[in-house]
Amino acid sequence: MKIRYASRMEGIKPSAIRSLNTNPKMIFFGGGYPDPDVFPVTALEQAFAKVIATSGKEALQYSASIGLPKLRKQIAERMKREHVECAQDNILILQGAQQGLDLVARLFINKGDTIITEAPTFLGALGAFAACEPNYETVQVDENGLNTDALEALLQQKPDAKLLYTIPDYHNPTGVTMSLERRKALIDIANRYDLIIIEDTPYREVYFDAPPPLPLKSLDTENRVIYLGSFSKILSPGLRLGWAVASQELIEKLTLLKLGADTQCSTLNMAAVSCLLEDYDLDAHIIRTRAHYKKRKDKMLDAMRTELPQDIRFTDPSGGLFTWMTFPEDFDSRKFLLECAIPEFEVGYVPGEAFYAKTPEINHARISFSTVADNLLETGVLRLANALRHYKNR
Amino acid sequence: MKIRYASRMEGIKPSAIRSLNTNPKMIFFGGGYPDPDVFPVTALEQAFAKVIATSGKEALQYSASIGLPKLRKQIAERMKREHVECAQDNILILQGAQQGLDLVARLFINKGDTIITEAPTFLGALGAFAACEPNYETVQVDENGLNTDALEALLQQKPDAKLLYTIPDYHNPTGVTMSLERRKALIDIANRYDLIIIEDTPYREVYFDAPPPLPLKSLDTENRVIYLGSFSKILSPGLRLGWAVASQELIEKLTLLKLGADTQCSTLNMAAVSCLLEDYDLDAHIIRTRAHYKKRKDKMLDAMRTELPQDIRFTDPSGGLFTWMTFPEDFDSRKFLLECAIPEFEVGYVPGEAFYAKTPEINHARISFSTVADNLLETGVLRLANALRHYKNR
Repeated sequence: MKIRYASRMEGIKPSAIRSLNTNPKMIFFGGGYPDPDVFPVTALEQAFAKVIATSGKEALQYSASIGLPKLRKQIAERMKREHVECAQDNILILQGAQQGLDLVARLFINKGDTIITEAPTFLGALGAFAACEPNYETVQVDENGLNTDALEALLQQKPDAKLLYTIPDYHNPTGVTMSLERRKALIDIANRYDLIIIEDTPYREVYFDAPPPLPLKSLDTENRVIYLGSFSKILSPGLRLGWAVASQELIEKLTLLKLGADTQCSTLNMAAVSCLLEDYDLDAHIIRTRAHYKKRKDKMLDAMRTELPQDIRFTDPSGGLFTWMTFPEDFDSRKFLLECAIPEFEVGYVPGEAFYAKTPEINHARISFSTVADNLLETGVLRLANALRHYKNR
Repeated sequence: MKIRYASRMEGIKPSAIRSLNTNPKMIFFGGGYPDPDVFPVTALEQAFAKVIATSGKEALQYSASIGLPKLRKQIAERMKREHVECAQDNILILQGAQQGLDLVARLFINKGDTIITEAPTFLGALGAFAACEPNYETVQVDENGLNTDALEALLQQKPDAKLLYTIPDYHNPTGVTMSLERRKALIDIANRYDLIIIEDTPYREVYFDAPPPLPLKSLDTENRVIYLGSFSKILSPGLRLGWAVASQELIEKLTLLKLGADTQCSTLNMAAVSCLLEDYDLDAHIIRTRAHYKKRKDKMLDAMRTELPQDIRFTDPSGGLFTWMTFPEDFDSRKFLLECAIPEFEVGYVPGEAFYAKTPEINHARISFSTVADNLLETGVLRLANALRHYKNR
């Protein structure tokens, strides 16, 4: 029997990350997971217990596809603090921000439509978009985020491009943040070239010193921006809760797609997070989370500055979970990883080539400091440095 | 600004059900919800408390897209009792069976591909399939389920049809069950015409007397059947957990689609249900659930037999939540509902015309007995009978 799959399956590939981390002795800088040590376990335990005890029947029943009204209102209030003008009707609760990528892609992309991603970009977004079989164009990210001049030059060549996907805050995988000037330029370009923007910002609240510039959504003058937020990095990813902020028209369409995709998010999980937002000081928790990751980032970057060869560059992120390492131009980071770093030195990362929608660059690596314990960070960097010396000399 | 939506949005429409139930005084036979009075609230409270207290960090973290290994193993054991040969690797955990409809559609359907649904069929399936822009063909359901002779005749005309969607047990909306003979014939036809079958069976364990015939998946000789199961009607829909059973190859492909769609189901909810399956006698709970719905079904059908005019027929389901009412041939059940039953008699149902993928029939109604309280069932039927008499005489 020859199975007749849909054509979209040709573009859908296994994760480049999940297959790498198999040796438990390895110090693995590859995972994009948050550190479970910062999960507010007790507060969540109390919230779930309270919701089931006081309104179990409602919390275990179906509810509206758009999400629980109370939680949507609480999120709208949080968004207003980010200078995003919105109300409950502008909020859709998602099965993690990942679901937002899938639903927005389905709302706009016909097979062959041109969409633009950053180079490099988030792997999970490529996984979601692939199901709609787009044609990709890419724009380089530099130390100030998406290069808007390069974007405008691209749009002059490809004026039919429909959608742009960006991670403006503590970008995955590079760790860079888009400057306010670039954000304003991007909104102006989107208005002129009729672009929809997905603003994917799961790390926005995980900053180390100053908060990031205004969200694109707060600068949006024509309802072109769909903002995707997430509880995964500020609360817990195992709850699978995120949200979209957009015009009421777009939220209604996305809700119809969600109804067909999975009916709704877990009523219980939505109710528990709503309860937690009421009973618990999430903001104080986020302040502790920031300090936790900042300490780890500083420790890792200090070790990298001391230990790594001078021809290796890396970003110094002001938030999020990642730094982006750039090796000399013809260095194959995947080959080095698989032939030397993992098997001989038990240290791993994600090779950069997977993060490109179009033209892969082979000399980068994504290094995460979120899930490597404090006491292993220096050892891990040292292993990487030793592996590089060994690889050079053989 | 004119928004350029993807072409699939033309086929995606608001639910025909959720908009009807607006008056709290109405007795509404339309909802397909299970009765929250049968949710095992205390058992779930204990399961969530135990999981968060004993393994909170793991349960609140990301986990594999395919679902928690332990829960998949427990489900595989339950499936073996249904004579379905399977192991953990044949099980994918879903955000409700609804997600299975979406993922299977995306695995197989290119725009314009022919797929076959029953006439009538589940509204939610049409919502999921619409996103892949299929071409529909339909086959009538009679008192023995899908008419396999009609299916074969159709396939002689449309040999390229790729996929058939069926609800063999306590069909939504008609309440009928496919006979064992028909099930065997269906597998034989699928093998000869190279059809993939979606066996959607959320009500399978909610039978009133004898269990239903063997699942199609247990009769499947060529890995053509994808079985979709659900915890929504035997445990709680607010947890959003269901599962697919299929060949390992198909499960791997569906898992890739799930990774792009929403990363994974809630780790916490999967862990809590796994804990509940270990600590709690779910089978005893399901026996109580059966008795609860059987009592309600009997009470409603008794009232219908006594009160309704003789020219109205209805099915007598042996499980599930629904009966299907058939009015005389030219009776417009939607018009009657909106002009008379709801506004004048405060009683509602779902008009049958929404349940057809292709050629709507206007003289049916789906009547659910699951969420109308015992003491309102007779009153509700009486209101319907009075409305019909009034409508006839005006």
